[in-house]
Amino acid sequence: MQFTIQRDRFVHDVQHVAKAVSSRTTIPILTGIKIVADHEGVTLTGSDSDVSIETFIPKEDAETEIVTIEEEGSIVLQARFFAEIVKKLPGDTIEVIVQDQFATTIRSGSSVFNLNGLDPEEYPRLPQLEEDLLFRLPQDMLKNMIRQTVFAVSTQETRPVLTGVNLETEAGELICTATDSHRLAMRKATIERNDEELSFSNVVIPGKSLNELSKILDDSNELIDVVVTENQILFKLKNLLFFSRLLEGKYPVTKNMIPTQSKTSFTLKSKPFLQTLERALLLSREGKNNVINLKTLEGGLIEITSIQPEVGKVTESIQSDNMQGEDMRISFNGKNIIDALKVVDSEEINIVFTGAMSPFVIRPTDHDHYLHLFSPVRTY
Amino acid sequence: MQFTIQRDRFVHDVQHVAKAVSSRTTIPILTGIKIVADHEGVTLTGSDSDVSIETFIPKEDAETEIVTIEEEGSIVLQARFFAEIVKKLPGDTIEVIVQDQFATTIRSGSSVFNLNGLDPEEYPRLPQLEEDLLFRLPQDMLKNMIRQTVFAVSTQETRPVLTGVNLETEAGELICTATDSHRLAMRKATIERNDEELSFSNVVIPGKSLNELSKILDDSNELIDVVVTENQILFKLKNLLFFSRLLEGKYPVTKNMIPTQSKTSFTLKSKPFLQTLERALLLSREGKNNVINLKTLEGGLIEITSIQPEVGKVTESIQSDNMQGEDMRISFNGKNIIDALKVVDSEEINIVFTGAMSPFVIRPTDHDHYLHLFSPVRTY
Repeated sequence: MQFTIQRDRFVHDVQHVAKAVSSRTTIPILTGIKIVADHEGVTLTGSDSDVSIETFIPKEDAETEIVTIEEEGSIVLQARFFAEIVKKLPGDTIEVIVQDQFATTIRSGSSVFNLNGLDPEEYPRLPQLEEDLLFRLPQDMLKNMIRQTVFAVSTQETRPVLTGVNLETEAGELICTATDSHRLAMRKATIERNDEELSFSNVVIPGKSLNELSKILDDSNELIDVVVTENQILFKLKNLLFFSRLLEGKYPVTKNMIPTQSKTSFTLKSKPFLQTLERALLLSREGKNNVINLKTLEGGLIEITSIQPEVGKVTESIQSDNMQGEDMRISFNGKNIIDALKVVDSEEINIVFTGAMSPFVIRPTDHDHYLHLFSPVRTY
Repeated sequence: MQFTIQRDRFVHDVQHVAKAVSSRTTIPILTGIKIVADHEGVTLTGSDSDVSIETFIPKEDAETEIVTIEEEGSIVLQARFFAEIVKKLPGDTIEVIVQDQFATTIRSGSSVFNLNGLDPEEYPRLPQLEEDLLFRLPQDMLKNMIRQTVFAVSTQETRPVLTGVNLETEAGELICTATDSHRLAMRKATIERNDEELSFSNVVIPGKSLNELSKILDDSNELIDVVVTENQILFKLKNLLFFSRLLEGKYPVTKNMIPTQSKTSFTLKSKPFLQTLERALLLSREGKNNVINLKTLEGGLIEITSIQPEVGKVTESIQSDNMQGEDMRISFNGKNIIDALKVVDSEEINIVFTGAMSPFVIRPTDHDHYLHLFSPVRTY
């Protein structure tokens, strides 16, 4: 194998596929990045067997020559070294030459690296997916959907299915749900489908995979294809394929958890409320329980307090709007509400309480694309 | 005690004194920041008994009112909480009120914090230093001197005196030296003295203290006073005092270590040389020994190589200027040279070798304010 490639484009794509490579894999070949040069261009693959990323660098892009293939072939190179090396190479182009015994030479400017490669025949094949279940959505929307749900997945392996985000369709909409059983984040979006009848449920993508995917997605509204199969999901971007394993097991039915009635409700400005909770958390996080107390006062005032007996107490009053229903005293994990408010893009949110011991809901006031549900904390 | 203070100025000064506070102190009162309000303004103190920082916020600065003192007094507040709290307070001003039993109220905007204070009488007094040994230098120069030496101090406690930077005077110049016995960084500077006869040696400031001081120094050329006593050094900035304990023990005489003859010498561009070594280190740091090899070739070419048998080899040739003397092959700890080249501000450096097993010296070509000395590494 021998090819010469534009340095910046190569570095960009190597960093992408390196995201899928884990140094803790038990399969030695997966510590490497697979490089294939053929008559169309160069394909790079990285995988930790849960997530696989494949990128393709065409010979030409927008009339500019990116790769010159002198000899087709393939090699696997240690991802950790290779990704660092290409980043630091001095020239504008990089030459990759593979000789006998997988001995690989990488030349750029004054620099020559001789690396011991691995046998590309040992590298596992990526899954070939049936593309029956296919839908499309803009990249930036997918990025937002991940941001607004993935923080709520469980980090505990006791119920593995909760470490993922659940995807399902309902009435032509895509619904993403994440919950760690103390809080829940739900996000809806309209998607384009190849088949009007398309419907699925219990498609649970590991949170870790979505965090990696999110780093690759940009804020363009370019449509990406999503293919869903029994145990894999594939996101098809331009010149990049992102495969993730799906989590096994039955995702809990969350629809019925969302209260429909209201005992107390009011509206707050999102950002000032977030900042008030962050100040209250300064004391409550000390006890490691993050408990913050909320109490309705006269005239729509809301009192937020937090107590850490050894250190002190914080009290803050904020003005709400549209106060409706009974007086309310409730305690909650402040960190969970803060996490949710951080991904709320709307200026105002509405909080609906159904009782001091029942879950409560935060929704933006200007649309119903997402909601956040929280369990209160018992403080007695 | 009761006062109202401009939030931004208070936050700025609290962050400064908090740098001296360690959460691992064995003296409970030192986990706090001492606040004293008197008729002139507010004084803040933080200390871990090695480093003490005192800042003063005057009632007025440049005709602007900064503090209004309603009642003089003092308190000690837990640094960790207090520093975080003031940073997040919502108002433009902060009101601090101390009542009975050191109960302290901090108000700002809608936010009220009630904190348990500590008895200010328990807080140790700062040392009163004799100001006999006093010199002056610009802040930016001191900041540079720290940057160009402190990285070379030893991190090992086996020879405690080497964990500090040694200060001494010679012919009216200040000389700073740091060494971990494998490398040495030396920086000279002209200082202003209160006494033409001023001279001292073996003033060893802990590297840790200098790193903290460096964060407080800015790039202005405002002169700062430095007071040296038997076991303390004091840096006097405008409205800020920085005290550090000095290290005990005899600092090694380093002057004779610096070779005066030359077997081989040449000149290199600093930045390309640094980048070449960084690439070579990608492989050599793997073996944890950081060994990089240098070899002179024909025509002033220098070959840099590094080998990691399991991974591969890197070779790079760079062009030197003013090659003089014999051919040279030498191996060294590449990380040490990289550290030094990172603080070199000159475009070109001169390297002087005295033999494959003898120390070598790197100096900027355009002045003699600093030099870096390195021991080679045996590779056989």
